[in-house]
Amino acid sequence: MTNTQVTHIQIDNYGPWTVTPEPRREVDLQTLQSRLYADLSQLFGNRNGYVFFTRFDNMIAVSNGVDMDAHALIQESVSNRYPVTMSLGVATGRSPVTALGTATELLQEEGSAQDKHRREILKGRVIDEEFRQPDDVQLAHFDVDNATEKYTDQLNEFDTFINIEQGYAELMKYMRHEHNSLSFFVGGDNIIAVCPELGNDAYQDAVDHVSETVNVQLKVGVGQGKNPADAGMDAKHALESCRATGETVELDF
Amino acid sequence: MTNTQVTHIQIDNYGPWTVTPEPRREVDLQTLQSRLYADLSQLFGNRNGYVFFTRFDNMIAVSNGVDMDAHALIQESVSNRYPVTMSLGVATGRSPVTALGTATELLQEEGSAQDKHRREILKGRVIDEEFRQPDDVQLAHFDVDNATEKYTDQLNEFDTFINIEQGYAELMKYMRHEHNSLSFFVGGDNIIAVCPELGNDAYQDAVDHVSETVNVQLKVGVGQGKNPADAGMDAKHALESCRATGETVELDF
Amino acid sequence: MTNTQVTHIQIDNYGPWTVTPEPRREVDLQTLQSRLYADLSQLFGNRNGYVFFTRFDNMIAVSNGVDMDAHALIQESVSNRYPVTMSLGVATGRSPVTALGTATELLQEEGSAQDKHRREILKGRVIDEEFRQPDDVQLAHFDVDNATEKYTDQLNEFDTFINIEQGYAELMKYMRHEHNSLSFFVGGDNIIAVCPELGNDAYQDAVDHVSETVNVQLKVGVGQGKNPADAGMDAKHALESCRATGETVELDF
Amino acid sequence: MTNTQVTHIQIDNYGPWTVTPEPRREVDLQTLQSRLYADLSQLFGNRNGYVFFTRFDNMIAVSNGVDMDAHALIQESVSNRYPVTMSLGVATGRSPVTALGTATELLQEEGSAQDKHRREILKGRVIDEEFRQPDDVQLAHFDVDNATEKYTDQLNEFDTFINIEQGYAELMKYMRHEHNSLSFFVGGDNIIAVCPELGNDAYQDAVDHVSETVNVQLKVGVGQGKNPADAGMDAKHALESCRATGETVELDF
Ligand SMILES: Nc1nc2c(ncn2[C@@H]2O[C@H](COP(=O)(O)OP(=O)(O)OP(=O)(O)O)[C@@H](O)[C@H]2O)c(=O)[nH]1
Ligand SMILES: Nc1nc2c(ncn2[C@@H]2O[C@H](COP(=O)(O)OP(=O)(O)OP(=O)(O)O)[C@@H](O)[C@H]2O)c(=O)[nH]1
Ligand SMILES: Nc1nc2c(ncn2[C@@H]2O[C@H](COP(=O)(O)OP(=O)(O)OP(=O)(O)O)[C@@H](O)[C@H]2O)c(=O)[nH]1
Ligand SMILES: Nc1nc2c(ncn2[C@@H]2O[C@H](COP(=O)(O)OP(=O)(O)OP(=O)(O)O)[C@@H](O)[C@H]2O)c(=O)[nH]1
Ligand SMILES: [Ca+2]
Ligand SMILES: [Ca+2]
Ligand SMILES: [Ca+2]
Ligand SMILES: [Ca+2]
Repeated sequence: MTNTQVTHIQIDNYGPWTVTPEPRREVDLQTLQSRLYADLSQLFGNRNGYVFFTRFDNMIAVSNGVDMDAHALIQESVSNRYPVTMSLGVATGRSPVTALGTATELLQEEGSAQDKHRREILKGRVIDEEFRQPDDVQLAHFDVDNATEKYTDQLNEFDTFINIEQGYAELMKYMRHEHNSLSFFVGGDNIIAVCPELGNDAYQDAVDHVSETVNVQLKVGVGQGKNPADAGMDAKHALESCRATGETVELDF
Repeated sequence: MTNTQVTHIQIDNYGPWTVTPEPRREVDLQTLQSRLYADLSQLFGNRNGYVFFTRFDNMIAVSNGVDMDAHALIQESVSNRYPVTMSLGVATGRSPVTALGTATELLQEEGSAQDKHRREILKGRVIDEEFRQPDDVQLAHFDVDNATEKYTDQLNEFDTFINIEQGYAELMKYMRHEHNSLSFFVGGDNIIAVCPELGNDAYQDAVDHVSETVNVQLKVGVGQGKNPADAGMDAKHALESCRATGETVELDF
Repeated sequence: MTNTQVTHIQIDNYGPWTVTPEPRREVDLQTLQSRLYADLSQLFGNRNGYVFFTRFDNMIAVSNGVDMDAHALIQESVSNRYPVTMSLGVATGRSPVTALGTATELLQEEGSAQDKHRREILKGRVIDEEFRQPDDVQLAHFDVDNATEKYTDQLNEFDTFINIEQGYAELMKYMRHEHNSLSFFVGGDNIIAVCPELGNDAYQDAVDHVSETVNVQLKVGVGQGKNPADAGMDAKHALESCRATGETVELDF
Repeated sequence: MTNTQVTHIQIDNYGPWTVTPEPRREVDLQTLQSRLYADLSQLFGNRNGYVFFTRFDNMIAVSNGVDMDAHALIQESVSNRYPVTMSLGVATGRSPVTALGTATELLQEEGSAQDKHRREILKGRVIDEEFRQPDDVQLAHFDVDNATEKYTDQLNEFDTFINIEQGYAELMKYMRHEHNSLSFFVGGDNIIAVCPELGNDAYQDAVDHVSETVNVQLKVGVGQGKNPADAGMDAKHALESCRATGETVELDF
């Protein structure tokens, strides 16, 4: 049974900062945001976690294996190196959606995302080491079939992007509402979903739904692990095995 | 009349690289992609251009003012510092969509995005310095009204994201098909659109459409300039003026 | 008794790479080198290690607490994100000099630093978890007295630098030959030395020597710990205590 | 005749910041410093300038071709993305030492490097575009003969470093006092010197001096240009030509 640990990362009072005293140069904001994300990818990644950029001012991490001390260190390291600080809410649950709900609430309870005085909140609970299990995290790596041949090499890049985006927009809603999963675009034609315990049928159902509604053909590899790094790597191997066999869904467990 | 210069940036043969010899750790790919984007933001931004991350393996830049030599230098600087190389197609046009179409074709003519032997293509034309005009670039900065109060402080972060995403997915398609514009999510609740010469009505129309179809309320500031940095900064000031006056659309020209 | 674990980090075949096929732009090399160092600082730092930039193509880490798997991960993460790879030799010893000697030999045995075929060597031994002790690492944080007033605010920046540099050049040799320590300039007017078990007298002796030979006045805080992060933070607190009391040498243990 | 434009870059009030409210983690400071340097390398480098890390809290740039607006933009971009700000003094002169002297004084006049209220100073003058000449900048690229064979592959890395360092310490003093030049270690066994108009004899003299005093054998390629990028690249080609011919000094002009 899955037990996903989720961290909601929120830059403190970021909106006002971007326009104070004057609107800041967009290229600098883009650089700041993407480097912060890159750093968090390494900071969580070095502890076997995964981070998703989501909206950049709010990011979502799957953090099984990252304890509260490590969260504190990550928070401190960012405040030592960036002109902004961030708050962290951490929660766990059988369903990633529930876990995230709790994580977000922990921050909301402390004030608004644009509260001037709410800074560097660190709240929540992690899974005690002794209760961590080899099937705590289930990750699915979705990928569009032949994206290069069908889109990239045919259409202008924006129209390719619209196709991929439509596939993503549809999948993210469907997985959220039908399967309590959080799906994130990770670049190219790839989407990683953080899922509760789901089986072959649920994934086939999601792939079919996307194919029927927006005509984008997906395949998906699924992995399980004690932490996101292991689950994610297994999912990638499962996806390679889809590529080899032509299967649409492959579970590596 | 606008004359948008667009650069299509494509990482060479990236898909195969990500899984050779074995699938690479996702956190490293995320770090690589977002840092490359950050670097390009600075490399183009230092020459008054804008880059959008789009799919990360393919990015789109508005590059008015960046000549072919500068493109070559950017390409070389990346190949000096990354394990991957990139190809660049550059084109101009009254409509950003047409310009991008040409830019993409320049790359497609040279082979597939996953062609092993197609590396570091640099093709295309820029606007001659003497023909550059103060209204070559029109940029619109869209923003969701009260996103913090309505979403961020109320819903779990993923549901907030779904709302923002729906607004974006709808706007990107509508602006593409009705107004020949390229719209990019830039984080938070912000979308920047690269537009041909559009007036107040077109923007009001787009905002209305998004409001009606997915119930997300936008406002938009629009700027014009010889280069993206100027047009974008004017758009930001126009957006601030929406904030001050309560207007939905504000053109800064 | 100290037991320092040292990692010798060497970029593989870097000299030839910098000039192939043509000399590469120096600013890109500088960017590459300093970012690689920044990344290693985080990669080791996240595991409570310290890295020193030394010559940039060869760096030295104090890595107590970083096991061989973590070394492998660091090596892989770099090769996933840089155009160069690196080899790692790991060794331990009562004296940092001896430990480094062994670490370097492990690499030398495998071939020259400019051997085309020697890539991503990973060799050596770490201290078994059960044998790690709270006094394994001794770090000394040296700092020039009133550098701002005496130099920075008086001389041109290069002449300030010459003064600091002379202090460093003298200290590094003296600590190496008299006290079996490895001293690294870390910016500003700060030097961090990795030491065997030394007492107050040894540090006073070194400070006196530098004062007498090149007329640069140092103070020093010294810390001990199971890992470099702890020892280094204690050394910083000891140095603050020098600042408060006017003492020249302060041991925080 | 050379006309070197020099920029003195100083982080504002950095010393106090590093220990407020408590000493900050050294690995984060190292990361901050080296990334700031990397960014400045790109920011100046994109405008054909060179930056040297010097003491990291104070850096020296050769900035021929970078005008005051560009300096302002660089300053702003850093303050948008870092927790610290920096002041810039810009000056020009026949001799790099004199130019730097003026640049430093411009900052010193505004207050101490550790003055709480002195922030983001930007002062000085650049060479007017019309007066820029193809021999404004003379750069010399020094390199140790066979460093790999003689040191890297023989000694422990610290002893190798001591040798290189001794060579550098000697050269920097000698070039400063005998030849009004500013010499910077740039990693590996390389030193780049910013020089006034010097001829073959001066370079041979410096190489001889280092060989005699500390027994380190150097060779040197020298280039001239309108900007540092051109002069530096010519110097590198001249150095390659030393490698090919066995000459000790090679001027590429
Ligand atoms: N984040 C991430 N992106 C990947 C990964 N593998 C591939 N991609 C992206 O996906 C894009 C397309 O590559 P592929 O999926 O291999 O190409 P394709 O043409 O769709 O071919 P098939 O998927 O094999 O049918 C690449 O450019 C990458 O951006 C991965 O492991 N992680
Ligand atoms: N990229 C980018 N993002 C911005 C900018 N300004 C704001 N944002 C993002 O938008 C988010 C929300 O901030 P605001 O739009 O100020 O907040 P709001 O609650 O929607 O308030 P109003 O827009 O004033 O109604 C911030 O967290 C940022 O992520 C900007 O100039 N550029
Ligand atoms: N790497 C590193 N550098 C530091 C640290 N603290 C200070 N520095 C550097 O040292 C420089 C000088 O700062 P201080 O040593 O505080 O200033 P000072 O004028 O010498 O004053 P005192 O040392 O108090 O006599 C700063 O600009 C920093 O570059 C630190 O903890 N780590
Ligand atoms: N910054 C910088 N460093 C370089 C450059 N070329 C070489 N290096 C450094 O110098 C080190 C030694 O390389 P080489 O100088 O080629 O090797 P060597 O053994 O001394 O051989 P020779 O100089 O040819 O006698 C490399 O590891 C790099 O760190 C360069 O262009 N710029
Ligand atoms: Ca695919
Ligand atoms: Ca908003
Ligand atoms: Ca000091
Ligand atoms: Ca050499």
